[in-house]
Amino acid sequence: MKRVSEYSALAEAEIRALDFPKGKLDALYAPIAYGMQAGGKRLRPTLVLMTADAFGKCPDKALRPAVGIEMFHNFTLLHDDVMDKSDLRRGRPTVHSKWDANTAILSGDTMLTLATKLVSDVDDSILRQVLDTFNNQALRVYEGQRLDMDFENQDEVALDDYIEMIKAKTGALLGGAAKIGALIGGASKEDADRMYEFGVMLGVAFQIEDDYLDTFGNADTFGKPIGGDINNNKKTFLMVKAIASGGANAEALKAALKLPAGPTKIKAVTRIYETMGMPAVSKAEAAAYSSKALAAIKKTSLSDDAREAYRKLIEKLVGRSK
Amino acid sequence: MKRVSEYSALAEAEIRALDFPKGKLDALYAPIAYGMQAGGKRLRPTLVLMTADAFGKCPDKALRPAVGIEMFHNFTLLHDDVMDKSDLRRGRPTVHSKWDANTAILSGDTMLTLATKLVSDVDDSILRQVLDTFNNQALRVYEGQRLDMDFENQDEVALDDYIEMIKAKTGALLGGAAKIGALIGGASKEDADRMYEFGVMLGVAFQIEDDYLDTFGNADTFGKPIGGDINNNKKTFLMVKAIASGGANAEALKAALKLPAGPTKIKAVTRIYETMGMPAVSKAEAAAYSSKALAAIKKTSLSDDAREAYRKLIEKLVGRSK
Repeated sequence: MKRVSEYSALAEAEIRALDFPKGKLDALYAPIAYGMQAGGKRLRPTLVLMTADAFGKCPDKALRPAVGIEMFHNFTLLHDDVMDKSDLRRGRPTVHSKWDANTAILSGDTMLTLATKLVSDVDDSILRQVLDTFNNQALRVYEGQRLDMDFENQDEVALDDYIEMIKAKTGALLGGAAKIGALIGGASKEDADRMYEFGVMLGVAFQIEDDYLDTFGNADTFGKPIGGDINNNKKTFLMVKAIASGGANAEALKAALKLPAGPTKIKAVTRIYETMGMPAVSKAEAAAYSSKALAAIKKTSLSDDAREAYRKLIEKLVGRSK
Repeated sequence: MKRVSEYSALAEAEIRALDFPKGKLDALYAPIAYGMQAGGKRLRPTLVLMTADAFGKCPDKALRPAVGIEMFHNFTLLHDDVMDKSDLRRGRPTVHSKWDANTAILSGDTMLTLATKLVSDVDDSILRQVLDTFNNQALRVYEGQRLDMDFENQDEVALDDYIEMIKAKTGALLGGAAKIGALIGGASKEDADRMYEFGVMLGVAFQIEDDYLDTFGNADTFGKPIGGDINNNKKTFLMVKAIASGGANAEALKAALKLPAGPTKIKAVTRIYETMGMPAVSKAEAAAYSSKALAAIKKTSLSDDAREAYRKLIEKLVGRSK
């Protein structure tokens, strides 16, 4: 096994080498190239490459499907940014603010088809399974996004519903990435399914940690301003769990969430979370899902070397504030 | 061979039988069911079924891919209506006006993935070819839509560029439908490619006729108000060809196109088209592309019976105002 950073460098190089039609069709493809150059951890293609290598020692065969998975992820970002009217992502203007919403919609559609093409670049013997995995994870992602949008109009969200949403919106794509990597590596159907389970649980742990960092992280290492979720009244693990706890603190929290966006609101909500012990609760929940992810790995036929690589990946992602 | 109306009835029944998840996910799937119930000619799935039958006597094997092709078409309508801010389609509120733009974007994305799943419901032996055909036609459709959007900001469009746009935006999906039907029917690669060519040429003939009917048709049989394209200064075959002819009439046309939308403008532009003999020019151009479509059919190994069925289809579509 290589180090995680080596897999992500492989993915990054393949993404940089993407070539799009120029000339008259630049208006369609330039926003796609721009969207793919956003950088970031490249977690999803890394998971494809790493898993293909873990099962079959063949990361190269997984390069184009890995880029396809990243293309799918970036397609969802283009459309999510239109739906959320977000102007910035990782410090750069989003496609819909740099160009316009129609461009983000149409170039996003194009990315979904390009992603399907890239992911389908596998041996004929596994094409059906890879394609089904890809399409099914995609449907789960849309379902998760729909639930997340519906949550915006609900005063309270049940914790189970929140976790179900995260499993779909964030977990399914990580699950799909790991399963597709496993299929390319020649894993058995059982092992491929376990890797899907691993990815979903990793996704939940990752999202809970991300919710935590949005309130309790360090702006420099987190990459965006702290408190954005609080200002937007976003349903996060912290908010859903704190309100579900009930009592005077939950009531105080509901009142604080009605404050106008700004530093006072961020400070008030953060203080209530601290009073309720939410940082430790959040860390424990993320750790519990990390354990579930690792448990899925342990059920596979993977070598100790590979298991250790996944343990390090989890640590890197979920313990990344430490 | 069955009659065209029998293939379209088969497609309609299969579309009516579609079953979507209910409950919490209704917000995602109800707009899809609504979009699929729009009715219409069901031309694209009809072409899949008819062509599978023509080559292999197996329309039933093509039912789900046929519905997939219609799902793809309806996905493009959902997104096009957002981009065009259209509130009505076939006399019903569009998805984005009945729900909202975000719903149309997300449910549209879901339709594209569902379409890919449905189209992939073919024998493993032809999965790769069918999938490639589907994805490549999809890219052509996006490219055509992009060019059409870009034309809106251009004063003049060259006739060749207009035809190229139509081949992509309208022709590619008809080509893809015919080719996928051929592949399901067991056609040779050569015959499948000829059926693609047939579909593209049929698409161009169909669009030129549609442009004609928007100005010179009968509102009752055409299904929407006459003159909409003129009011919207839409680049149509009539406009592009008339302006390309140059001279005093073209200058008069440019002036008339600057009039405010309304009956006076429609009448003025229509009269100039008539003075220029555009109805006959348009009919001749549509007939020329119909001939190209038929020529592609004649190059295949299809029986006389099948050829006659395609001839009738062309007559029905392109001669449908007669």
